[in-house]
Amino acid sequence: MNDKDYMRLALQLAKKGCGWTSPNPMVGAVVVKEGRIIGQGWHQKYGQAHAERNALASCTEDPQGATMYVTLEPCCHYGKQPPCVDAILDAGIHRVVVGSADPNPLVAGKGIAILRAHGIDVTENVLQEECDALNKVFFHYITTKRPFVSMKYAMTMDGKIATYTGASKWITGEIARTHVQRQRHRFRGIMVGVGTILADDPLLTCRIEGGRDPVRIICDTHLRTPLQSQVVTTAKQVPTILATCCGDPEKQAAYQQTGCRVLCLEEQCGHVNLPQLMEQLGQEQIDSILLEGGGTLNWSALESGIVQQVQAYIAPKLFGGRDAKAPIEGAGVSFPDAAFRLKNSRLEQLGEDFLIESEVEYPCLPESWKKSEQ
Amino acid sequence: MNDKDYMRLALQLAKKGCGWTSPNPMVGAVVVKEGRIIGQGWHQKYGQAHAERNALASCTEDPQGATMYVTLEPCCHYGKQPPCVDAILDAGIHRVVVGSADPNPLVAGKGIAILRAHGIDVTENVLQEECDALNKVFFHYITTKRPFVSMKYAMTMDGKIATYTGASKWITGEIARTHVQRQRHRFRGIMVGVGTILADDPLLTCRIEGGRDPVRIICDTHLRTPLQSQVVTTAKQVPTILATCCGDPEKQAAYQQTGCRVLCLEEQCGHVNLPQLMEQLGQEQIDSILLEGGGTLNWSALESGIVQQVQAYIAPKLFGGRDAKAPIEGAGVSFPDAAFRLKNSRLEQLGEDFLIESEVEYPCLPESWKKSEQ
Repeated sequence: MNDKDYMRLALQLAKKGCGWTSPNPMVGAVVVKEGRIIGQGWHQKYGQAHAERNALASCTEDPQGATMYVTLEPCCHYGKQPPCVDAILDAGIHRVVVGSADPNPLVAGKGIAILRAHGIDVTENVLQEECDALNKVFFHYITTKRPFVSMKYAMTMDGKIATYTGASKWITGEIARTHVQRQRHRFRGIMVGVGTILADDPLLTCRIEGGRDPVRIICDTHLRTPLQSQVVTTAKQVPTILATCCGDPEKQAAYQQTGCRVLCLEEQCGHVNLPQLMEQLGQEQIDSILLEGGGTLNWSALESGIVQQVQAYIAPKLFGGRDAKAPIEGAGVSFPDAAFRLKNSRLEQLGEDFLIESEVEYPCLPESWKKSEQ
Repeated sequence: MNDKDYMRLALQLAKKGCGWTSPNPMVGAVVVKEGRIIGQGWHQKYGQAHAERNALASCTEDPQGATMYVTLEPCCHYGKQPPCVDAILDAGIHRVVVGSADPNPLVAGKGIAILRAHGIDVTENVLQEECDALNKVFFHYITTKRPFVSMKYAMTMDGKIATYTGASKWITGEIARTHVQRQRHRFRGIMVGVGTILADDPLLTCRIEGGRDPVRIICDTHLRTPLQSQVVTTAKQVPTILATCCGDPEKQAAYQQTGCRVLCLEEQCGHVNLPQLMEQLGQEQIDSILLEGGGTLNWSALESGIVQQVQAYIAPKLFGGRDAKAPIEGAGVSFPDAAFRLKNSRLEQLGEDFLIESEVEYPCLPESWKKSEQ
């Protein structure tokens, strides 16, 4: 096994933390001595020990003189845990092989610099692309302080998310729907518009065994969410946030009594100011949001510049219908040149369905963000 | 090289006829003697010699005792050409390896039976799947007498074929657009609605060098195609058919003078009776049609049961827009269970774009077909 093979193993370990480390990154580490793997670990849960310490703790022999493979630059600051560079130095590790550099301004190359200053041989950027991809959510969150938003929709091959009657159960098959449930586990929040609540009264929980429910965020400009809706009646079990422009304290109180949190925000183009909402959610350590909106909310989100990724599940069927529902509605762009562009598209087959996952390529910081930053 | 290897070579030869053999199938043949390839041929053009005769004519030594590999069962009837089984028997071929059986009721196993009756060793179904796929158009046409229709559209990742202003240039990139041009060469006809002529005034020719222009078919219920439109003014160079319900002889004459043919058909649900049109086009040896319709025509075509295949080119961009144009509009189905289902989806990446090609799975013969057959 060479450096890349050990790093690949560290990557596999890191992924075991998926859904539990937020807003921390997923990190995996492997300790190798004279060609023998003597320790393995990963960051298992937010607030608990980091991957490097777990790997060292698991060592079956003295790590003195060994090499450590770690997917992300070791930290050098006190957070919930003491710095990992100290643990590496204490253990007598001679060489450290790193995947991604840590973009966290509190680390950002300092971890590696400290190791080198103590005479440790450091190799950087091994399987960097894979390591970066693993933590795109963390990298976005730590540099912008706003959640990474993925717009998810399931559509037919002719671009419909519901028939003209509004019916949408089901568009994709079971394998694709289970894949969506895994996204709900992976993302810290799930966001829909009040229209979806009124139309489908969904629970918006994660229905895979051992999965973690995302925080439910309802964009509800005028507080129209029914008090009898499933999200409201289960708000004591699953965190639920109503994002609104309605300042009426009485109306707000009715929701608060059920356990919902109410965030009162500015209005922007007739709806909740989404960049402002992202700022507040980011402050509450919500690092990632699965946007399962209808066409109206999806357009507002795209237009206001808060969407980083699109996950389009495409089913091999056709609905037709001039009045059928489309994944993104609203005003739309006037000309093809003004289209929102996607990049780095990745395709996956899920049973009979397809998933195309792409990054949104904003030409520059959208106007609406600038406004909210003034 | 084994049987499959030689058949693969025959398949490659067959494909050289793509676009030129219609309404005949594409066929390739290879003659092998004692492990040496001594002859190769393919059906080059409708009306000219078949693959078997071309392969025999190309032989560099006496084919007596050789094996012939041929992608499709040799014919045994007189058409434009004498039967190929005669040529095989005359040449003293000892063994024939066949890909697809010929579904043409004039052949249908008889070719193989005659060869066997003459003591020739026949092996069937070698690379049958590939050989069948090569001639799906021919197989459909010869058994139904109606053209194989492929609904082609280019849409954004959010299912739009034009922005709300109607602009659609361009959705996909150059590689995907060249791919479409190759389809125009491959298909014998191209069909659009009058709406497309009025909106875009397209030429609908094949713009690849050495390509063959498809017959242009305009569905124009009320004869609204402008006499100044490009399709009409070039009708003397490129065959153009107007399919209409307008029986006014004066109106029809104006188009006929420009070189257009006018087919007058029954009205069905407010538009041209499409199954009837297919029947007539089939009688005129149009074996395949690329349907480049807008949402209205596409829905009518799908609903009336004339579509065999969908070619969805998907571009990594988003238009949004409640009023943006969708690939299939019309009434649409009411509930997901009533969706038109697609099968055997095949995915291809074309530069930054994707192509998903699927077969339409009609549950049974649609009502509209039955009507037209009464």
